[in-house]
Amino acid sequence: MPSEPTSFSSESYFATQPPPSTLEHDIAGVRNFVARQQASGRNVVLVTSGGTTVPLELNVVRFLDNFSAGTRGATSAEYFLKSGYAVIFMHRQFSLQPFSRHYSHSTNPFLDFLEIDEDQPSSSFSSSHPQISSSSLTSQTSSEPKAATCPSQIGVTPSKRTHLLEVLTAYKQVHASGTLHTLTFVTVNDYLWLLRAVSQELSALNRKAMYYLAAAVSDFFLPRQKMSEHKIQSGKGSLHIEMDQVPKILKPMVDEWTRNGYIVSFKLETDPALLIPKARASLERYGHQVVIGNDLNRRKFEVVFVSRKVSSTPVRLTTGSEDVFEENWLRIDLNQDNDKEIEEDIVRELVKRHEEWVRKEE
Amino acid sequence: MPSEPTSFSSESYFATQPPPSTLEHDIAGVRNFVARQQASGRNVVLVTSGGTTVPLELNVVRFLDNFSAGTRGATSAEYFLKSGYAVIFMHRQFSLQPFSRHYSHSTNPFLDFLEIDEDQPSSSFSSSHPQISSSSLTSQTSSEPKAATCPSQIGVTPSKRTHLLEVLTAYKQVHASGTLHTLTFVTVNDYLWLLRAVSQELSALNRKAMYYLAAAVSDFFLPRQKMSEHKIQSGKGSLHIEMDQVPKILKPMVDEWTRNGYIVSFKLETDPALLIPKARASLERYGHQVVIGNDLNRRKFEVVFVSRKVSSTPVRLTTGSEDVFEENWLRIDLNQDNDKEIEEDIVRELVKRHEEWVRKEE
Repeated sequence: MPSEPTSFSSESYFATQPPPSTLEHDIAGVRNFVARQQASGRNVVLVTSGGTTVPLELNVVRFLDNFSAGTRGATSAEYFLKSGYAVIFMHRQFSLQPFSRHYSHSTNPFLDFLEIDEDQPSSSFSSSHPQISSSSLTSQTSSEPKAATCPSQIGVTPSKRTHLLEVLTAYKQVHASGTLHTLTFVTVNDYLWLLRAVSQELSALNRKAMYYLAAAVSDFFLPRQKMSEHKIQSGKGSLHIEMDQVPKILKPMVDEWTRNGYIVSFKLETDPALLIPKARASLERYGHQVVIGNDLNRRKFEVVFVSRKVSSTPVRLTTGSEDVFEENWLRIDLNQDNDKEIEEDIVRELVKRHEEWVRKEE
Repeated sequence: MPSEPTSFSSESYFATQPPPSTLEHDIAGVRNFVARQQASGRNVVLVTSGGTTVPLELNVVRFLDNFSAGTRGATSAEYFLKSGYAVIFMHRQFSLQPFSRHYSHSTNPFLDFLEIDEDQPSSSFSSSHPQISSSSLTSQTSSEPKAATCPSQIGVTPSKRTHLLEVLTAYKQVHASGTLHTLTFVTVNDYLWLLRAVSQELSALNRKAMYYLAAAVSDFFLPRQKMSEHKIQSGKGSLHIEMDQVPKILKPMVDEWTRNGYIVSFKLETDPALLIPKARASLERYGHQVVIGNDLNRRKFEVVFVSRKVSSTPVRLTTGSEDVFEENWLRIDLNQDNDKEIEEDIVRELVKRHEEWVRKEE
């Protein structure tokens, strides 16, 4: 059923696409968090992270996705926390999270660095398997393992202890201080509804709020009204998908949802020639503060900050955008220091710029 | 650029689409593993798990995906190992894996049940952060924490110890016995090339090999020749995608790649009325042993085994398929036993059927 693409403004989007069922609950949690941070005088940053999905069916089997493990967002969130910010971490379900990111299943699986004390009696796999004899296991839980001196039969491989202790200490401190609030999205629709609601709550902080939009958001979506109810059947030749454009959400974000918030968006390209022109066009169109441009294959060690020159007024000049914008490149040398994460430098630079931004209020 | 969909046979597929770069290395590992299991007389099952992607661009930013966390495959692999099988676990990168699946980041994050012994000196987050002061951390690694009686400052929360010890014990035993071999795919192209190669290696085991195809494989793909090099640009209206059908891989798998292997495929539907007819059609078309049918919303507690009646010959009867096939439903009562996993019953039933299948050889 080929049909004309619909052009959605953000108003028509929210008027026709249903909100996620957990939205009210999520907003209440954010409101509470923002109020606590406001009372403590902390700056708050919203970090969005991971890719959004576009379901092709109402009963979701197939979906379009955007490539993102969530490394940029999860890593940056850790450095913002370290810099004294409170963080609302709005991320794609199952994407990387601050702290636990150091121990993803594939690169550093945690079961590999736990050890069993061989001197203690241990049960055998064949006689008692997890889940299977769960009822008998439960009854054993009350009588703790018979370790006299140590509280557990389970230990950490020596070479991994120092790093784990660092991560764990940071994790526990952040939880104890209540400076990290986590939200989850899956679809681009979840993302758009959440972003609007969180931005509106966070606008209470005025200039002390930063918006760090690192999520990889789909440019296209399939309106609810065009979606197939059941799994699209194969066997009928090729698959045709026709999608509509996601509304340009930065526009209402800058103009309506936030008040003087410091907004940082990202541009990911694979063609280097497009990076700067597209970043500038974005700043011209939406009028926010910074675009961080990155090339898909160089993003771990090189990014560019594109922003309006401090001296220039936010009025578009007829002489062209060269005079209005400036680029600042951040690069790290992975050969010299391969433990270095570029997010450390990104966050340091943003914190500095945000401090200046906050001072303008005074 | 609208173009006619191409119809790919499996021959033309492999003749025109490039193999993944790691294929030769992966095959060598599988060959070695199969030889060791053959020497020990073990049955081997290939478990495929997780969803495949269809990249829309050569420099991948966007892709089509199939919904699957990999729960069915990862859970089944554990029960196969417990039943004495050796397992080749061929899974989507970052999808769930046997054992570590119990501690996914979201449902049971492992940092939450580790504790720091407060009596021991611990470093503070603000003064030493992971990665940042990594050089000074490295130098500390040689001087272990000053625990006198216990080997680590890090302990496991008491309520989690018993279950973790069970999982960890099983994990270590499987690693020590060398009965689990893990392979990774991302795209549907990776999957198809790997499946063919692994099947060919595993066919050395003849009837003692089982193929448990639980991965959620795309029915459609975008041939290399039609792919856009760079990120598809938005701003040009709607997105049109036209994909070709993935060749029906079960056909050559049954007829050419495996020799008398026991092949189990899965059918996931959202429309209950389609489940049995489609499972029967699949058996008729490909002539393999079992189709396990499951409904998207009931798959955790209900599946159906569709297979040829033991008495009937593999010739299609003109009286219709009702006389040729039989259905066996497996259901578990989640209210009665909510720790029970249906994969335990699925694997028990398959092991029984496979044993009969192996005996036919004698």
